[in-house]
Amino acid sequence: MRAPNRTQNVYPYQNEPTWSRSQKAIARKVFDAALKRELQEIMRQAKRMANQMKEPADVWALERYLTQRRKDIDRNYDFRLSRLTQMLGRLLCEGRITEEELRGLGEDKVMAIRSCTKVLSEDAA
Amino acid sequence: MRAPNRTQNVYPYQNEPTWSRSQKAIARKVFDAALKRELQEIMRQAKRMANQMKEPADVWALERYLTQRRKDIDRNYDFRLSRLTQMLGRLLCEGRITEEELRGLGEDKVMAIRSCTKVLSEDAA
Repeated sequence: MRAPNRTQNVYPYQNEPTWSRSQKAIARKVFDAALKRELQEIMRQAKRMANQMKEPADVWALERYLTQRRKDIDRNYDFRLSRLTQMLGRLLCEGRITEEELRGLGEDKVMAIRSCTKVLSEDAA
Repeated sequence: MRAPNRTQNVYPYQNEPTWSRSQKAIARKVFDAALKRELQEIMRQAKRMANQMKEPADVWALERYLTQRRKDIDRNYDFRLSRLTQMLGRLLCEGRITEEELRGLGEDKVMAIRSCTKVLSEDAA
């Protein structure tokens, strides 16, 4: 018998609250800014790795790095309303966004996002 | 009904001749040199693409380029005696090796390699 998932039924996004138009717009802006920063970071790192390449193994290490980051991006940046709280919680947990950027979402949303961040931090610990 | 392959039964490598130890050593040297040149070329191109990256699309173009070149390398550089004539013929056809490098293999081998090159050039035309 499988052990029950200890986080089952406790993720806040299972009862995702509704998002007003202005809240969605803020969330989209935060999402776009975080994605842009992450893409810039990947670009900088790729340039760095390319400039330091000396051996063929370095070339394939760059390829593996890019493939992994593309998969991370595809998985992590998914702007679906049903996953918005969790996604923002993860970005906050990873330090890719700040609470300051979430201002305007309203206390209930920010608390739900913080709660996700807490669960994710505990899972990662 | 499928049309018969017009090159069926005409590839010289189907009756691959035996390779003496010294011929194998020459073939190996030519193979290693061609592979090294191709890897250097990929490295130079990757550096160039990385340095010119401006948009996220450029990052994924670099990833696609590297993945494609890795697959090409895996497919094309296969040092099996049963495929040696064909492989050298392909490298000659692509201008990655010269007839000069094949000197020492003996006239029969060089002719078989040239014959492969001819078939591949015609196929590509």
